[in-house]
Amino acid sequence: MTRKIAVVVTARPSYARIKSALRAIVEHPDLELQLIVAASALLDKYGSIVKYVEADGFEITAKVYIVLEGETLLTSAKSTGLGIMELATIFDNLRPDVVVTVADRYETLATAVAASYMNIPVAHVQGGEVTGSIDEKVRHAVTKLSNLHFASTERAAERIIKMGEDPSSVYVTGCPSVDLAAEVLKKHALDFDPFERYGGVGAEFDYKDGYLVVMQHPVTTEMGDGLEQIQETLHAVEAVEVPTFWFWPNVDAGSDGISRGLRIFREQGRDKNIHFFKNMVPEDFLRLIYNSRGIVGNSSVAIRESSFMGIPAVNIGNRQAGRERGKNVTDVPYEKQAIQDAILCILDNGHYEPDHIYGGGAAGTQIAELLATAKLGIRKQLSY
Amino acid sequence: MTRKIAVVVTARPSYARIKSALRAIVEHPDLELQLIVAASALLDKYGSIVKYVEADGFEITAKVYIVLEGETLLTSAKSTGLGIMELATIFDNLRPDVVVTVADRYETLATAVAASYMNIPVAHVQGGEVTGSIDEKVRHAVTKLSNLHFASTERAAERIIKMGEDPSSVYVTGCPSVDLAAEVLKKHALDFDPFERYGGVGAEFDYKDGYLVVMQHPVTTEMGDGLEQIQETLHAVEAVEVPTFWFWPNVDAGSDGISRGLRIFREQGRDKNIHFFKNMVPEDFLRLIYNSRGIVGNSSVAIRESSFMGIPAVNIGNRQAGRERGKNVTDVPYEKQAIQDAILCILDNGHYEPDHIYGGGAAGTQIAELLATAKLGIRKQLSY
Amino acid sequence: MTRKIAVVVTARPSYARIKSALRAIVEHPDLELQLIVAASALLDKYGSIVKYVEADGFEITAKVYIVLEGETLLTSAKSTGLGIMELATIFDNLRPDVVVTVADRYETLATAVAASYMNIPVAHVQGGEVTGSIDEKVRHAVTKLSNLHFASTERAAERIIKMGEDPSSVYVTGCPSVDLAAEVLKKHALDFDPFERYGGVGAEFDYKDGYLVVMQHPVTTEMGDGLEQIQETLHAVEAVEVPTFWFWPNVDAGSDGISRGLRIFREQGRDKNIHFFKNMVPEDFLRLIYNSRGIVGNSSVAIRESSFMGIPAVNIGNRQAGRERGKNVTDVPYEKQAIQDAILCILDNGHYEPDHIYGGGAAGTQIAELLATAKLGIRKQLSY
Amino acid sequence: MTRKIAVVVTARPSYARIKSALRAIVEHPDLELQLIVAASALLDKYGSIVKYVEADGFEITAKVYIVLEGETLLTSAKSTGLGIMELATIFDNLRPDVVVTVADRYETLATAVAASYMNIPVAHVQGGEVTGSIDEKVRHAVTKLSNLHFASTERAAERIIKMGEDPSSVYVTGCPSVDLAAEVLKKHALDFDPFERYGGVGAEFDYKDGYLVVMQHPVTTEMGDGLEQIQETLHAVEAVEVPTFWFWPNVDAGSDGISRGLRIFREQGRDKNIHFFKNMVPEDFLRLIYNSRGIVGNSSVAIRESSFMGIPAVNIGNRQAGRERGKNVTDVPYEKQAIQDAILCILDNGHYEPDHIYGGGAAGTQIAELLATAKLGIRKQLSY
Repeated sequence: MTRKIAVVVTARPSYARIKSALRAIVEHPDLELQLIVAASALLDKYGSIVKYVEADGFEITAKVYIVLEGETLLTSAKSTGLGIMELATIFDNLRPDVVVTVADRYETLATAVAASYMNIPVAHVQGGEVTGSIDEKVRHAVTKLSNLHFASTERAAERIIKMGEDPSSVYVTGCPSVDLAAEVLKKHALDFDPFERYGGVGAEFDYKDGYLVVMQHPVTTEMGDGLEQIQETLHAVEAVEVPTFWFWPNVDAGSDGISRGLRIFREQGRDKNIHFFKNMVPEDFLRLIYNSRGIVGNSSVAIRESSFMGIPAVNIGNRQAGRERGKNVTDVPYEKQAIQDAILCILDNGHYEPDHIYGGGAAGTQIAELLATAKLGIRKQLSY
Repeated sequence: MTRKIAVVVTARPSYARIKSALRAIVEHPDLELQLIVAASALLDKYGSIVKYVEADGFEITAKVYIVLEGETLLTSAKSTGLGIMELATIFDNLRPDVVVTVADRYETLATAVAASYMNIPVAHVQGGEVTGSIDEKVRHAVTKLSNLHFASTERAAERIIKMGEDPSSVYVTGCPSVDLAAEVLKKHALDFDPFERYGGVGAEFDYKDGYLVVMQHPVTTEMGDGLEQIQETLHAVEAVEVPTFWFWPNVDAGSDGISRGLRIFREQGRDKNIHFFKNMVPEDFLRLIYNSRGIVGNSSVAIRESSFMGIPAVNIGNRQAGRERGKNVTDVPYEKQAIQDAILCILDNGHYEPDHIYGGGAAGTQIAELLATAKLGIRKQLSY
Repeated sequence: MTRKIAVVVTARPSYARIKSALRAIVEHPDLELQLIVAASALLDKYGSIVKYVEADGFEITAKVYIVLEGETLLTSAKSTGLGIMELATIFDNLRPDVVVTVADRYETLATAVAASYMNIPVAHVQGGEVTGSIDEKVRHAVTKLSNLHFASTERAAERIIKMGEDPSSVYVTGCPSVDLAAEVLKKHALDFDPFERYGGVGAEFDYKDGYLVVMQHPVTTEMGDGLEQIQETLHAVEAVEVPTFWFWPNVDAGSDGISRGLRIFREQGRDKNIHFFKNMVPEDFLRLIYNSRGIVGNSSVAIRESSFMGIPAVNIGNRQAGRERGKNVTDVPYEKQAIQDAILCILDNGHYEPDHIYGGGAAGTQIAELLATAKLGIRKQLSY
Repeated sequence: MTRKIAVVVTARPSYARIKSALRAIVEHPDLELQLIVAASALLDKYGSIVKYVEADGFEITAKVYIVLEGETLLTSAKSTGLGIMELATIFDNLRPDVVVTVADRYETLATAVAASYMNIPVAHVQGGEVTGSIDEKVRHAVTKLSNLHFASTERAAERIIKMGEDPSSVYVTGCPSVDLAAEVLKKHALDFDPFERYGGVGAEFDYKDGYLVVMQHPVTTEMGDGLEQIQETLHAVEAVEVPTFWFWPNVDAGSDGISRGLRIFREQGRDKNIHFFKNMVPEDFLRLIYNSRGIVGNSSVAIRESSFMGIPAVNIGNRQAGRERGKNVTDVPYEKQAIQDAILCILDNGHYEPDHIYGGGAAGTQIAELLATAKLGIRKQLSY
């Protein structure tokens, strides 16, 4: 019998991380995809991920608006509550056999809570990893609400089991985000003009001789520090004087501080070597990174896809603290001088050998196969 | 500096389980209690726990209505979402230093999620226990969202630590519900007439020569089986022919099945030895149990308070599966004959020696002291 | 082209009032019915109207849970807000060409608000009438949000036009509730045993020699007076000593006061001549009234259907104040003696001649035809 | 006894329109202001009106986040529902004696619905006016929910009474927005540099020799036409070649179309004579208009304040259709040529004589006095 698999996609990174699995689910003879696009993935302000989803040929089963404007701690909490209310209605209509939830955002938690209370088995992708911030609470809470675990690394799987999950429900599939990187490597030339295809604002420069990519998100448990943190990075990148593509942050409590920092910098006319984008098709984004001299900031792309592709990365601050990483990553605090030194160092060093800690590029296919064959149930009990 | 402690009380059992801690918080010189009464605790249909709270002399800081009528899986999920939305507003107004959440209900989860997203430390009472049903998912998810853990037993504390919580944040305080039992034991005579004080419906009988107490709740992961399950118990109790006080179930997905079973039984005129109550003041309830010949059903009172008081208990089905228990408990499946046999057996056996696995009666005081002195923070990281 | 007509049914009276129109919509070749059952119509506690809807052969397109438990002013307001949120999702999925909203309840308003903001034309049944209580505010506010008006009486239509609605959008169709009465009159014998078919609680008596029917709802602008008001009626009916069928009140802020009054009366064992029902199939209910000696309380059935059927009615208090009425109605205040005198008076008087102020029994067909042919639009402008 | 007056401020125009009344309420010895700032007034994206409110010295009693991101018809409906839910909580806490709601936005309706269901008298400012779009439905629905009416013009008051409101509850106070204009006229010099004080983007020019002001909002019943509509205006203003200050639109379903039009125009580098602002302190905004050669678009400022100040206005399209206007207003359709001709005409014509149809500048004081002295009640009945 065909199993109905509901997947909730809510943001730029969660789409990139699950895309190869979505494709494998669509192609699997025993699975039917119910694709729910929700939250910031629907919003123009965050780059309308939904357009990329449609352009990639996926059929969208339902759209769910849950982001309460304000970007404060209060509105994050309320959006989570609203997400549960809205997703419950959707699940009640769609009656999926499994709900797939990705990573560690508030929509991830809302998805897992709604499905749990509706007695629908929950499959969690990217559980068992360790980082800083509120994500840490949310990720492991989702693990405890989930019935199937698709871990990205061996150590993540071990941690999930240590947390008391039934080992027979835990699989090391690798991270589906790496699948996309593997795909991109087969055809890795930067075959488009970023300015032309993605517009954006700021300086336009010759990027043929090398450039940096920067992506720095707010850290929700460090609310109110976003403005200062981003300024350290801005001043470091400014000092290095290398052409730079810079991406606006995710929607999150605290993203307004970062956005303000970027705007002030631009208004001071200091964006001489920097061009700002809201968003890119994931494949283009990975191609941009692959052809760069390095990535700077606190995005997990620096840890996952970049380790697989061998791209040097400067990781700033606590957001990725604790996450397993390859040799390509240099960690630095929120300090202009440290960031600048680390950037100079990676510019010197050049690309690394590929590292497969986050999987070898077949996570999506494995996840689809497991969704088709794994024993499903909602009952759990701590195994110790 | 005085710490503001927000405690969310949402139902009959959660009030009984936290009452001694509430009292200790009020009396502690360095703590200020912010008592939030929510969900079914406000509803006439579930016995208006709020009236007992007021009668006990507690000042209520806020009341929050979050129960969506319907008692389906869908409305449970939606009530959780609504709970997060409403509690977020309350926390935003009250600005507590710690939020205390009790046990494993949907409101427990809503409380922990709202506080987590608002960067308020969460203290969890009764984490680390093992049972069946959705409660199991919720309880451990709340552990992962919490920053302080007040465990009822040594083994519960071990499990919390095994799940990766920082051992310095985990305390074995015993269960505050046992405090109330300890209090009641000091003055244990049944000094009131249950019919007179609590009304209720059904047979009125002479209870001086011994009686049973029954309390059986729905098991949310066994939705739809409530009617059949309760009928097994009803017929067993009917066959035993001992005077019986029976309590209506908690509000939960599935409680309508149980309620229907009780109503049908009554309409058939078979409640010859049974009297039905909605609710009792916790102390009266414990006195009723202490003076009974045994307790039957699937309430945790049979496991916690009754082990401390030495009252024989027949525990039916999966709801308490996995929870640590004393010698006073006999486990049986949902089968009339097995239930009947077990009841006859406990009638024979009489009371047991007290067993202190769930604490010695000072949990409330310890919890208050820890809330006043423990290091507070919101940042967590898996300890392995 | 077929027009999709969404009708939102939310309670016992709104179902009875729209049922003939539902049937006519289903049978109309150019219309497709989208039947949405919501609010108290879904709840066991209020008699599960949804079961009657299904038994009548209607296909339900969507179910919407919006009743927040508590029955306070606060929960009424919140349920209205929740209703808008939930109905908006439904309308977004169903894309109706017209939304039909009935009478003057909070769900009526929620329906009209949600449709208005979604640019869907709103058709209102039973606008332009005059009564007391919050209903008065809501009914006329719904008129101002509506694009088509199906009035029950000539005077109601005049009032709608006076309020500034375009006369070409206002039709006197009569009240669809009267259609059902007309249907019932064709086969009016009380061909069922009420005790047997509907259970209920209280006295069982011989009703062959005549009986009364009582139905008294809370008046929301007189919150807190429900208990006293119902006691006046109870004591009057008790004094008259005629067999009486009594119906529990609608869900509304204040209904708990009335329910409490009924329970106290029963617990005092004073229900010697009274039997209580939650609900009846509308046709059975009308047959019960037709064969009665009179109806007592504040239900609009006493005014609408009963004028058409010629049944004498005692109307108590302000709830129907201002509504047009036939000779069958005697108005009295909330006073035991006045109620008792008026009951004695109608017992003496016997049945009346039919009065067609609320239409002649073809409202449903006319409404369906107008929904199929009327010009649809969302733009409005005050006509003076 | 002091009356507690809750006023809900939700957007730039509603603040400007009620500010003088807020001040008069604060200064009145028998009134206590409960100022609730909600919706877009809290959002950075819409110019953070809340900062101006604070800078004006008002104490904010509560902040309420209710805007769901998305700016579709669905999210407008849902934000209304959410607004009712949130405002009900606030009213329950604040227990105001009267709730004041302004004009005709979805928050206006949410405010009136929440207060009505909570039995709190509602006072409506700016009822009885006639315009196009959804506002027309909302404005008159709010009239039917309100107990006190503070009309801006004689004709508006007449319409409110014609709609069936009790004449003794209807007062012609004039429009409080004119009070601000009267205040500004006393000290009308443009004593600040708009570029310096408000930043904004686009051309910077010498505005000393005259300039235009443009402000064009989406029309919600013409959803999807925003982009085309704004382009007609943009091209007309471009052709006129006069320095122009242009304001971004309000948050509303459809505002993204307009915003996109403005962005495209800017990206094409056509903003040679145009500078764009998000927002201004109301007084600065009125000074900017007073010193301009005319105002263009569809804002009500062109109709109200500008008639009082004698500023020529080109009013485009249907948004203000039906609203009373002075000689200063020229109406044109959404057509480049017509707009351009009308602008040339007003540039020729120069300023007009003041016209007091919207009051003489003392509305705020009158409203405060009436709030202190008017008879309060919640019961209403259609007066015919």
